[in-house]
Amino acid sequence: MLEALLKPGNIAVVGASRTPGKVGYEILSNLQANGFGGGLTPVNPTAAEILGLPCKPSCKAIGTSIDLAVISVPTAAVPAAVDDAIEAGAGAIVVITAGFKEVGAEGAGRERALAARCRSRNVRLLGPNCLGLINAHHNMNASFAKHMPRKGGISVISQSGALLTAILDWSAERRLGLSKLVSMGNKADLSETDFLEALADDPDTKVIVGYLESVAAGDAFIKSAEEAASKKPVVLFKAGVTAAGGRAASSHTGSLAGADVGYAAAFRRAGVVRAERFETLFDIATAFDMQPLPRGNRVAVLTNAGGPGIMAADAIELSGLKMAGISPAIADPLRKVLPAAASVNNPVDVLGDADAGRYGIALEGVLKDDGVDAVVVILTPQAMTDAVETARAIHAAAAGSTKPVLVSFMGGDDVRAGRAALIDARLPDYPSPERAVAALVAMCEYSAWLRRPPRVVTRFPVNRRRVERIVQRHIRTGELQVGEAAAKEIIQAYDFHIPPGALADSAQAAVEIAERIGYPVAMKIASPDIIHKSDLGGVKLHLNSADAVRDAYDLMMLRIPQRVPAARLQDVYVEKMCGRGREVILGMTRDPQFGPMLMFGLGGIFVEVMKDVAFHLAPITQEEAMQMLESTKSFGLLRGVRGQRSVDVQAIAEALQRISQLATDFPQITEMDINPFMVAEVGRESVAADARITLAKE
Amino acid sequence: MLEALLKPGNIAVVGASRTPGKVGYEILSNLQANGFGGGLTPVNPTAAEILGLPCKPSCKAIGTSIDLAVISVPTAAVPAAVDDAIEAGAGAIVVITAGFKEVGAEGAGRERALAARCRSRNVRLLGPNCLGLINAHHNMNASFAKHMPRKGGISVISQSGALLTAILDWSAERRLGLSKLVSMGNKADLSETDFLEALADDPDTKVIVGYLESVAAGDAFIKSAEEAASKKPVVLFKAGVTAAGGRAASSHTGSLAGADVGYAAAFRRAGVVRAERFETLFDIATAFDMQPLPRGNRVAVLTNAGGPGIMAADAIELSGLKMAGISPAIADPLRKVLPAAASVNNPVDVLGDADAGRYGIALEGVLKDDGVDAVVVILTPQAMTDAVETARAIHAAAAGSTKPVLVSFMGGDDVRAGRAALIDARLPDYPSPERAVAALVAMCEYSAWLRRPPRVVTRFPVNRRRVERIVQRHIRTGELQVGEAAAKEIIQAYDFHIPPGALADSAQAAVEIAERIGYPVAMKIASPDIIHKSDLGGVKLHLNSADAVRDAYDLMMLRIPQRVPAARLQDVYVEKMCGRGREVILGMTRDPQFGPMLMFGLGGIFVEVMKDVAFHLAPITQEEAMQMLESTKSFGLLRGVRGQRSVDVQAIAEALQRISQLATDFPQITEMDINPFMVAEVGRESVAADARITLAKE
Repeated sequence: MLEALLKPGNIAVVGASRTPGKVGYEILSNLQANGFGGGLTPVNPTAAEILGLPCKPSCKAIGTSIDLAVISVPTAAVPAAVDDAIEAGAGAIVVITAGFKEVGAEGAGRERALAARCRSRNVRLLGPNCLGLINAHHNMNASFAKHMPRKGGISVISQSGALLTAILDWSAERRLGLSKLVSMGNKADLSETDFLEALADDPDTKVIVGYLESVAAGDAFIKSAEEAASKKPVVLFKAGVTAAGGRAASSHTGSLAGADVGYAAAFRRAGVVRAERFETLFDIATAFDMQPLPRGNRVAVLTNAGGPGIMAADAIELSGLKMAGISPAIADPLRKVLPAAASVNNPVDVLGDADAGRYGIALEGVLKDDGVDAVVVILTPQAMTDAVETARAIHAAAAGSTKPVLVSFMGGDDVRAGRAALIDARLPDYPSPERAVAALVAMCEYSAWLRRPPRVVTRFPVNRRRVERIVQRHIRTGELQVGEAAAKEIIQAYDFHIPPGALADSAQAAVEIAERIGYPVAMKIASPDIIHKSDLGGVKLHLNSADAVRDAYDLMMLRIPQRVPAARLQDVYVEKMCGRGREVILGMTRDPQFGPMLMFGLGGIFVEVMKDVAFHLAPITQEEAMQMLESTKSFGLLRGVRGQRSVDVQAIAEALQRISQLATDFPQITEMDINPFMVAEVGRESVAADARITLAKE
Repeated sequence: MLEALLKPGNIAVVGASRTPGKVGYEILSNLQANGFGGGLTPVNPTAAEILGLPCKPSCKAIGTSIDLAVISVPTAAVPAAVDDAIEAGAGAIVVITAGFKEVGAEGAGRERALAARCRSRNVRLLGPNCLGLINAHHNMNASFAKHMPRKGGISVISQSGALLTAILDWSAERRLGLSKLVSMGNKADLSETDFLEALADDPDTKVIVGYLESVAAGDAFIKSAEEAASKKPVVLFKAGVTAAGGRAASSHTGSLAGADVGYAAAFRRAGVVRAERFETLFDIATAFDMQPLPRGNRVAVLTNAGGPGIMAADAIELSGLKMAGISPAIADPLRKVLPAAASVNNPVDVLGDADAGRYGIALEGVLKDDGVDAVVVILTPQAMTDAVETARAIHAAAAGSTKPVLVSFMGGDDVRAGRAALIDARLPDYPSPERAVAALVAMCEYSAWLRRPPRVVTRFPVNRRRVERIVQRHIRTGELQVGEAAAKEIIQAYDFHIPPGALADSAQAAVEIAERIGYPVAMKIASPDIIHKSDLGGVKLHLNSADAVRDAYDLMMLRIPQRVPAARLQDVYVEKMCGRGREVILGMTRDPQFGPMLMFGLGGIFVEVMKDVAFHLAPITQEEAMQMLESTKSFGLLRGVRGQRSVDVQAIAEALQRISQLATDFPQITEMDINPFMVAEVGRESVAADARITLAKE
C-alpha cells in the first residue's frame, strides 16, 4: 500500500534548485546525502545538472517511468507540474508548495482541482503545503528537514510540518529510532486514514504516532484507526481541544457535547492511545516501541532513593495502577543478599550506595514475582553510582523477562552516558518517575483494550416502517422539531415503554382521554414553537379529576398565548402519570466528525449543574452501554445508596442500545432527548416520560 | 538567622578521612575544592594531615572557636562528637551519619537525646541522616554531593538527600543558578519551618523550593510558609499524597478528609505554590527566578509554527488563563511589517521562515499591548531558524518590559545553543509550550495570592461559658460522643438557630413536648451507642398528632433494643419539624498536622456519592468561607437553577465562621457534623436540623 509514495524506486524532484537554502535544493540534497538507492532526477528546465545529477526539463523528459514526484514550484505552476508527473507515470505525488486551502476560498478551489486531477488518474497526492516525507528504512529523506533519523520502529504522521522538524531534532538528541515521518499538509487527498492503513501493515513500523488537528472523515478514521490499533499501538495527540464548537443545539444532549467529546469518544472506540500532552506522545511511543505489553496493572518500583520511590508510588496509585505486593518467596532471598537497611517491600529500596550488581539482583528478583506485571526502575546519581554499568545490569536482568521495565535515571551529566546505554538497550528512560508511570498507564490501557471482548451490537426487532412514516411526514411538512406525542410514537416503535396518552384538542376531549387512561394524569402543551414547556406553564402534573383536567386545559389555552403570542398551540397531550422511579436523561446528538453520539446522565441537577454525563459513539454494545453508565460519578446512586434499592440498570443500558439503533437507522434524526427516562426498580417497567426529536431536512 | 550553619567562618569536618570515596573525605574535599574561604579543619585522632590540611584529634583541640561542625563518624561515636563540637563553641552542627530515627525505636531514642543535647546548649542541629548543605554564594559545599552549582537565586530544601544530588546534577546540565541547598535528613531539630524563616530573609534567595514528605509542626509550618510567601515565592512538592491516612473517624467530615486534604488546605492558606509533579517544581521555580510576576492572566502566544501555537492555546484555556486579544493598535502596524501570510491574531504566527528580527518586532509589539499580561514564545527549528540570534532578539525585546516572557524552544541539537542563550539571558525555557504555560499558571496564582485582601477573622459574640459547661460535663462522664440534644445546645450557644425541642423519657412526656412546641414534630432516639439513627428506625418525621407521637415513642423503645440489644436508650428527642430549605452539610475535623479543618458540601448524595466537598483550615474569614462554597461543583444549586430561588448563601458562610470559632475556642472538640443544615431562602431563618460532636479526653 502506498508503495509508490513510501518506497519509490525512481523519484523526480520537480523544481530542483541550484541554490542551497531553497526548498528545491534541500529536498534533492537530502535525498542524495542520505543515500537514497533508487533513481533520482532533478527536474528544472533551466539547469543542465544539479548536485552532480543530470537535470531534465520535465518528468516526461526523464524517459523512464517515475514512481514519485516531489514538487516544489511556484503555486501557479503546480497544476502543470502535477500533470507532467502523471504523464510520466508517477504513482504518487508530493506537493510541497503552499498557497492552497490555507490561504482562503480561492486556494481551496485550486486544491480541490488538484486532488480531482490526481484522483481521476489514480495517483495519490500528499500535501499540498507540507514538509514532505521520510522513510528511514528506505534511506529516503524526501523532505526539506535536514535531519535523517536513526532507523527504528516509530512512525510519525503530522498535520504540522514544523512539529516534525522539532521531533526529528529532538529524536536525534534522544537517540530514538524512527521509521516513516509524514507531513500531511492540507490533506487534499492522502490523510491520516490512508497512513493508518498503510503503517498498520508496514513491517518496519512498531508504533504509529500522530499529531492531528482534525480528521478528514470521521467514520473512515475510526475504521482505519481501530484496524491499526488491533495490530500495533496508535498514539495520537489531538490539538485544538478547546476550540469553540460553535454548534447550534436544540437538545440538552447537543448543548452538553463540547468540541472535544467526539474525538474522545472516537479515540476510545478505536483503541487509540491518547496523549494528553505533547511530551507524553513520545514518552508513550517509546515505551511501546521498546518494551513488551504488561499483562496486568501491578507495578513494582525499584529505587536507590526513598523520595523518588514515593513519587513513583504516588503516581501509580493516583493513576489507577496498583503497587504490587512482593511475595515472601521473592522478598526473603532478596533480603539475604541486600544490605540490612534495604527495603524489600514495594518500593524496593536498594539504598544510595547501590552498585550495578545490587540493581541487577533486585530487578531479577521482582521480575520473577508472579504478583508483579511491570517494573519502574529509578536511579539517582550518588557517590557510588555507575550509571552505565547499572544500565547494563538492568538490561541483563530485564532481558530474561516478558514484563515491561521502564526506567528513570534522574539528573544530568552524571547519568547522560547511562541514559544513552539504556536507550541503546531498548530500555525507555524518563527524566522523572512520574513520566515513566504515565507511559506505563498507557501501556496498561492499550493492553486491556486488546483483551476486550468482541464487540457485538445487538439488533432489536423494531417497527422501523412506522418510524419511517412519522419521520417522512414531519420532513414533508417542515416540522423538524418533533413534539412529544410524535416523538413518543417513534420511540415506542423501538420498544420504549411510554405512559398511555393521547392528544386532546378540547377540554372535553382531554377529560375523555383522562377517564379512559385513568387518573392521575399529566397534561403538556403540544406546540412546535415551544421547547421548554414547563417554563411557560405548559405542564400540569398529578391531575386527579375531570375538573382538574378541564381547568388545566383552559388555563393553558388562556395563558400561553399571553406569554408567547406567536406560538401555534395545536393540542394538549394527556397522559397517565408515570410511577415513581429514578430520573435519567438519555440522548443523542450528531458529532460533525463522528456521527451519532449517545449521552447518558442522571436527571436534573446532575446533568445541568454537575455536568456529570457520559458520551459514546453509536452503534453501542451492551458492554459499552454499561461502561458508559459506570463512567458517571453519580452511577452509585443507581446501584442504591443508604437503603434505597437499586434501579434497573439493565433497562438503561438497553434503552441506550435502542436509541443507538434508531440513530443508526435514521440519519435524518439529528438530535434527541428522552428526558426524563424513569428507571424503575428491577422487575418493574421503566418508562420514557418525555421525549423530543429534531430532524434534518433531507 | 542560622548564620553559623549557612555562612560559617570556621568549619570542622569531624570524621575527616584520607580515603577518597569515604564521606569524611568527600566533604572535606568538596569544601576545599570549591574555594571555601573560612577556616577549615579536619578532625581525626589518627591522622596528622588530610588533603594538605593539618588534622586535629578533636574540635576542642583546634584552639579557636568553630562555627560549624560537620560530623560523619560511626553512629555510636556521634554523641561524643557532638559534645566535643559544642564544647568547641560550634553554633551549628550537621550530623551526616545515619542510624537514627529511620532504623526504628531505639534509633529514635538516640536521635531525641541528640536533639535535646544540642537544644540545651542553644546549638542548632541539621540531620542526622542527611547529605549536608551547600551555600553557593558562600563557596561552601559542606555535603558529600560533588557538584557545586552555579550561583543563582533558587534555594532548595529537601527531605530526600538523593533527590538533591539529582537536582544538582540536573541543574548543572541546565545551567541553572542555585543559592542554598539543604538536606534536612531526619529533621531532629532544624526543619522546613526554620529554613523557610531563614531563606525568607536571605538576600541571595529569590525563590524557595522544597521537597517535603511531611512537616514537623503544622501550625509553625503555616506561619513560616505564609511569612516567607509574602516575601518571595515558595514552591513545594509534597510526596506521599496517596499514603493511607489511617485516621479513625466517627463523623462524615472526618471520613471524607483524605490524607492529602490537610496539606492542600495548608499550602493554600500559606500561599505556597504547589508543584503537582516533580518536573513542575523547577519549571515553576525557574519562571519565578527569572521573570517578573504577571499582573493578570491574559496571555499572548508568539510562534513560528501553527501546531505548537494551538498546543499553547489549548493549555492556556484548559488551565483557566485567557488567550489575550491583540488590540488593533498593536496588530495593524505589526501586520504591515510581517509577511502577508503571518497571523497577528493570538497565537501570533511569524511563520516557519521567521528570522530573529521578526521575532523581536512581534514580541516587542505584543508586550506593548495593554491587553497582554504575559507572553509565551515558541520556536521550532526550521531551515531559516537561528536559535541563538532569536534568543538574543527575545531578550532584547523582553528587556524593555515588566511583563513575564516564557519560552519554549522545541527540538534537540538545533536549539541547544539557543536554549543556553535563553537561560543565560534569564529567559526560562521549556521543552514544550504546555510546560511553559503550567509555569505561567503558577505565576498567575501566586500573583493573585499576593494581591489578596487582608485576612480578617470575625469574632462573633457567643456564649462560650455555656459550651464550656457542657463540654466539661461530657468529658467528666466519659460521654465523648455528644448526642444531638447536647450538640444542639452547644451550637445554639454559638448562635445557630435550632428547631425548638426537648428530650422526653416517656411517651407522655413526648406528647407534652409536642403539644407545647406544636405539630408537626420529628422524633429521634437519643443514645450514646447509636450513631446512624435512621438506619435503625430511630428517626420518625412529620408526626402530626399526639397518637402519632405516642406510637413512635413506643415503637422505638420496642424495636431498637431488638436490633441493638446493648444500646443504652436514654431518651427520645422531640423537636419541631424544620421548614423547607436546601440541605447542606457543615463539619469540622482535626487534621493530624494542621488542626481544625472545616468542611462544606451539599447534603446527601452530593457528599456521599459525588464527594463534592470543600475543606478549609480554621480560622476562616468571610471571603474564604465564600470561596469554599464557590469551589464546590454543586454551588450553582444554591444560587438557584431553573426557576428555583437562591438560598441564603451568606447564612452558610457565617455558619462556617461560627464553627471555625467554636473549633478554635474548644480544642477538645475533635470532630463535628451539622447535617443537615437547612438553608432557607434569603430573608428566612436557616436551621441546624441535626448535629453531632465528638470530644477528646483531655
